[in-house]
Amino acid sequence: MAEARKLRMGMVGGGPGAFIGPVHRIAAELDGQIELVAGAFSQSAERSWEAGVRFHIDPARAYADYRQMIEAERKRADGIDFVAIVTPNHVHLPVALAALEAGIPVMSDKPATATYEEALKLEAAVQKSGLPYGLTHTYAGYAMVREARAMCAAGKLGAIRKVAVEYFQGWLSGPLETTGHKQAAWRADPAQSGAGGAIGDIGTHAFHLLEYISGLKVTAINATLRSVVPGRRLDDDCNAFLRMNNGAAGTLACSQVAAGEMNELHLRIYGEKGSLAWRQQDPNRLIMKWLDKPEEIHHAAMNYLSADALAVARVPAGHPEGYLEAFAVLYREFADALIAWKQGQANPLPATLPGIEAGMRGMRFIVRAIESDRKEGWVEF
Amino acid sequence: MAEARKLRMGMVGGGPGAFIGPVHRIAAELDGQIELVAGAFSQSAERSWEAGVRFHIDPARAYADYRQMIEAERKRADGIDFVAIVTPNHVHLPVALAALEAGIPVMSDKPATATYEEALKLEAAVQKSGLPYGLTHTYAGYAMVREARAMCAAGKLGAIRKVAVEYFQGWLSGPLETTGHKQAAWRADPAQSGAGGAIGDIGTHAFHLLEYISGLKVTAINATLRSVVPGRRLDDDCNAFLRMNNGAAGTLACSQVAAGEMNELHLRIYGEKGSLAWRQQDPNRLIMKWLDKPEEIHHAAMNYLSADALAVARVPAGHPEGYLEAFAVLYREFADALIAWKQGQANPLPATLPGIEAGMRGMRFIVRAIESDRKEGWVEF
Amino acid sequence: MAEARKLRMGMVGGGPGAFIGPVHRIAAELDGQIELVAGAFSQSAERSWEAGVRFHIDPARAYADYRQMIEAERKRADGIDFVAIVTPNHVHLPVALAALEAGIPVMSDKPATATYEEALKLEAAVQKSGLPYGLTHTYAGYAMVREARAMCAAGKLGAIRKVAVEYFQGWLSGPLETTGHKQAAWRADPAQSGAGGAIGDIGTHAFHLLEYISGLKVTAINATLRSVVPGRRLDDDCNAFLRMNNGAAGTLACSQVAAGEMNELHLRIYGEKGSLAWRQQDPNRLIMKWLDKPEEIHHAAMNYLSADALAVARVPAGHPEGYLEAFAVLYREFADALIAWKQGQANPLPATLPGIEAGMRGMRFIVRAIESDRKEGWVEF
Amino acid sequence: MAEARKLRMGMVGGGPGAFIGPVHRIAAELDGQIELVAGAFSQSAERSWEAGVRFHIDPARAYADYRQMIEAERKRADGIDFVAIVTPNHVHLPVALAALEAGIPVMSDKPATATYEEALKLEAAVQKSGLPYGLTHTYAGYAMVREARAMCAAGKLGAIRKVAVEYFQGWLSGPLETTGHKQAAWRADPAQSGAGGAIGDIGTHAFHLLEYISGLKVTAINATLRSVVPGRRLDDDCNAFLRMNNGAAGTLACSQVAAGEMNELHLRIYGEKGSLAWRQQDPNRLIMKWLDKPEEIHHAAMNYLSADALAVARVPAGHPEGYLEAFAVLYREFADALIAWKQGQANPLPATLPGIEAGMRGMRFIVRAIESDRKEGWVEF
Repeated sequence: MAEARKLRMGMVGGGPGAFIGPVHRIAAELDGQIELVAGAFSQSAERSWEAGVRFHIDPARAYADYRQMIEAERKRADGIDFVAIVTPNHVHLPVALAALEAGIPVMSDKPATATYEEALKLEAAVQKSGLPYGLTHTYAGYAMVREARAMCAAGKLGAIRKVAVEYFQGWLSGPLETTGHKQAAWRADPAQSGAGGAIGDIGTHAFHLLEYISGLKVTAINATLRSVVPGRRLDDDCNAFLRMNNGAAGTLACSQVAAGEMNELHLRIYGEKGSLAWRQQDPNRLIMKWLDKPEEIHHAAMNYLSADALAVARVPAGHPEGYLEAFAVLYREFADALIAWKQGQANPLPATLPGIEAGMRGMRFIVRAIESDRKEGWVEF
Repeated sequence: MAEARKLRMGMVGGGPGAFIGPVHRIAAELDGQIELVAGAFSQSAERSWEAGVRFHIDPARAYADYRQMIEAERKRADGIDFVAIVTPNHVHLPVALAALEAGIPVMSDKPATATYEEALKLEAAVQKSGLPYGLTHTYAGYAMVREARAMCAAGKLGAIRKVAVEYFQGWLSGPLETTGHKQAAWRADPAQSGAGGAIGDIGTHAFHLLEYISGLKVTAINATLRSVVPGRRLDDDCNAFLRMNNGAAGTLACSQVAAGEMNELHLRIYGEKGSLAWRQQDPNRLIMKWLDKPEEIHHAAMNYLSADALAVARVPAGHPEGYLEAFAVLYREFADALIAWKQGQANPLPATLPGIEAGMRGMRFIVRAIESDRKEGWVEF
Repeated sequence: MAEARKLRMGMVGGGPGAFIGPVHRIAAELDGQIELVAGAFSQSAERSWEAGVRFHIDPARAYADYRQMIEAERKRADGIDFVAIVTPNHVHLPVALAALEAGIPVMSDKPATATYEEALKLEAAVQKSGLPYGLTHTYAGYAMVREARAMCAAGKLGAIRKVAVEYFQGWLSGPLETTGHKQAAWRADPAQSGAGGAIGDIGTHAFHLLEYISGLKVTAINATLRSVVPGRRLDDDCNAFLRMNNGAAGTLACSQVAAGEMNELHLRIYGEKGSLAWRQQDPNRLIMKWLDKPEEIHHAAMNYLSADALAVARVPAGHPEGYLEAFAVLYREFADALIAWKQGQANPLPATLPGIEAGMRGMRFIVRAIESDRKEGWVEF
Repeated sequence: MAEARKLRMGMVGGGPGAFIGPVHRIAAELDGQIELVAGAFSQSAERSWEAGVRFHIDPARAYADYRQMIEAERKRADGIDFVAIVTPNHVHLPVALAALEAGIPVMSDKPATATYEEALKLEAAVQKSGLPYGLTHTYAGYAMVREARAMCAAGKLGAIRKVAVEYFQGWLSGPLETTGHKQAAWRADPAQSGAGGAIGDIGTHAFHLLEYISGLKVTAINATLRSVVPGRRLDDDCNAFLRMNNGAAGTLACSQVAAGEMNELHLRIYGEKGSLAWRQQDPNRLIMKWLDKPEEIHHAAMNYLSADALAVARVPAGHPEGYLEAFAVLYREFADALIAWKQGQANPLPATLPGIEAGMRGMRFIVRAIESDRKEGWVEF
């Protein structure tokens, strides 16, 4: 029976001090389909072992190196079913390549890689392998993002004319990367993060969400990037104009120096008949405003929602679900796809789960934004 | 090493169609300290086995009866460390007694029992056993509830003068219990639910939250109960005045016929210098209003919060945590207490985790509210 | 031509330091139908004259005494068309009686009088005179209060089951009346204010709004009153249960020691199908929540509103109207009624404008609340 | 005594069907310092007379032509003290010139003129005349806009790094100008409106507010304009990047095809230490977010506000003031300045009241935005 055991996850990254590793662990296990059984949590054997203890895994399966993990696990009868990559960006590619070459599916944090050149290599490897590859654009997992996407797909707004997405944080308002802060340090280091600062770290989320919800594609971009904090080597603030493939126009703004903001991801889409708005910090509500009838607030888990939105609700309306639950939706979809794939289904990933295509779009967003900024004008996407 | 294995949970209740069982499973496992390994999920052996498959547990440990589970598990070397009770109310007591008699700690859904007489038996059994007993008053697990509690304890509001708590739902606006709806059916049946309808199901939450946050105790109550939906055998709407042990006055209102409300639990506390307000449907914010300075919004996971509030944050500010995370906080505290207890610590439950005392207060709330309603006046608490 | 001149208002009260006098002046004149031409603004001739200068009226028409004003104005060809009473409560009756006896219509601040005995005299005088008498229950003038009222009248919520109104302020959290604060001083003085403190000052507003919007009548009340601030001679905090004439139950709470609240008047009505909520501090929105469709926000001045709500909109949607505009709606309706009355129409006051009947209900609310508090139980209304 | 009479206003424009004329009348008279006594409300003598009757003015002072009004009024002993211009844009200049030449001060609706060439003429005339000239950038009159301005001036946010202002309406989502809708018709007609559509009508407000609150000046702009509705001759949607004179970067967006929006003017300013946000549709609150302390909501009329904000409050905190009150603040400041000017004070206009300089900035904004759009790139401001 397919459900008789949980899928086994091996994690790369997520050692002591990491933020996103524990998040992946919780998200993966939340719906009871996956268990973390192995990991190369740190490049230090000792720290990897420490993390393994904390995660309650078999100490023998806390590896000091991802290659070692892949090699050892593929030999086990109870070896891992997939690898979760939760490292800084520059490590995404080598781990993904190693896993894919070993025939092991991959669930990766975003952005797909550190550079566009790397992304092309990854894309080729994913395609060649035929293996499931998922990308954790977390916000795609929120029920009301699914609802917004369903609304656009159903044409409820009429033709889309105008889009606006912004993602504002304030936590890099000072030179945090010079203070020993681990999260800030790698994000501000081009060698680890890639060419994009804020645009890579959070701009890619905003970009993905915009295309994901609207169903449109960006065809041209005009971006201005700044490094507001003196000495910072990557952008920390970006404003961009967008042209969409249906003729709509848009804006995308992201910043990590928006002092006072926490994690303000806000998207609005305007059509002929009305508009929708969603805020990540108030995720269980979708605002719908209409030309000629009252504004509506659609609440998560209410019966009137689309099937897509209801499919991802775990608790009754009025019981807030949050960031971890959204993350877990992606893992749930990945788990379901893995099971289908093991049963022989080709292309098992559902359209709702971001994968390599979304990864390539995101990487292109980073390079096009930088190109546009240098040129001080529009570039085709 | 204490962390070397997860604690093992056996669940009673939570079979197919249940709401709260899967919630307990997610909450218990969320922080990686506990795993569900056994269960008597249903009184039907087949349905219990079905649930076990869905939960990915060893089929041999999906029992048809809680007594059978307790007996079998206590003999195993890898037997359960505690029982989670997630049944309708009238089953709480027999399961708890059986577990305690077998020397197994208990984590129970609320209310503690179906009747006050049962509660007295439970209290005696818990005290006699010396075993850890936790009660899942979920809302006590929210970070900003902890913050509100810390604010009151620190006297930030000055002497408390006035409290107001309300818990409004609309899902029982019609006779849902007559339509085959499982959740509605047992809640509306005095034989399963006990003497309290809305006051037992949600009023006890409101009552607990009020005492939990304010640090005050109710000393007298004047309640009016109604069964608004024709034919309903238990109350579905309640308004109550409260007197608190410091002289403050208050109100408590709960309703399950407040059409249009989802899960609107809202608490306000007014002191000499200012007031606080918290809403479960917007749980990551605590509103503080002051006599002579700007209104403040305290956000979960921000550095300025109390140690108690920061202790339960899992993700950075602006990444919403919700109902499941709050629930998981209680399980985390219970797990920590279990480990301490196994290491010989007496009374290991922290003050932040509701236990038998909170359970007794809640049961008394139910009977006092009913007494007061019959008398049409005040009763001492 | 009827519109060829503005109606002439004489004000009693509103001298230097007054809050509500200037508000009445603005409200009366806002829609261009009324002009302030005379006043007995203060019992001091000098201060009355000062106020007259500030109001730009003819110095000869700034009187030191309301009797003098009435006598002088009735002799003028361009004498006042009505008296606006904006004094402390205990002066309402003598001024109103003097005006009515002189055949001059009255627009009075609320409550109607200081005591219920006075109210009976006023009621008799109004009825005997046949003159228009309006009462400024300001909140009845908001567009979205009109919308809420129209919604209830049209049965949009189904049968009403539950009502809840609260009016919380914090400005009397300390003994402000002992500091020389004029507004606080008379409100805290039974000789000027009457038997009701907070219940008279703001409870009457809450009570009126509840009956005004719901279309229901209170038939019984169970109230508890407190004087929270030591030494205060009148109530400053009240909680009440209500029974309505259709069997619905309700609560009314008012407080002037709710530290941190400004002017939080909040009303909710729950019916079989849904509910509505309105907050005075966010007055241009009406929240409608439904059992089975999305929550709605109805915005002032949008075309989908009822005729009653649209009738009082002055500016397009999205241009906020506030307290003064709501106040002005009452004066506009009073002015229209005066013109109709001058043209011979009997009973010209529209049902939307509070008058003597509302005044009597409010006075009864005060005495019944006090009776109930003394009795510690229910009293028929 | 200076206050012994009200200032006399003559209005040009504001005939039957007009929106902004009655608004100016209410605003001008609200604080009791000004009365409307004359007008050339329409180019039709009959319609002007009709408007005069409705405004209750002396029929002899309802003129068919602004020249006639100016000529007649200057001869009267009780002639007008200033002219209020409330016509479509293309009439602003001739009326203003005529008034200034006749020695009569001017209060004009915005934008200052229809074209930049006209604006230069106006500027010269104002400077030559030495007469008071005010411009009704309404939003500058809100108390919390004053508070925001004071906050920036006091450096509370630290150095400003980032600004964002948007002004979204949806009322022109369809071709309303082809349906006989008067307000839409002139706004969509270049001959009456000038070269700017949305950017002139509402973009100028957004632009003004940004400079007004931040204290910064725009030094370069990169704008894209669109006419989204087929057949529309002027822009109805605009996105712009801004560079500020202190090095900050910003965005300005305005749209009249943002379906579902009413009058959504929203401004945010980010500094080193924190940020502020203000929304016109929720005007009595100013949001302050900080790097390291709780978010604050500053409420209108509370004692902790700046003197500038308190100076314009009319009613206690919690009693909402709105659009008309903001408008009236500008008239109050203009009236005070007129009185000072009559008493011989040079340059009596306060810095808080927009005048010819703000008018010139706004006109430059329109032409620079259009230039930039044509060039598809940055232009110096």
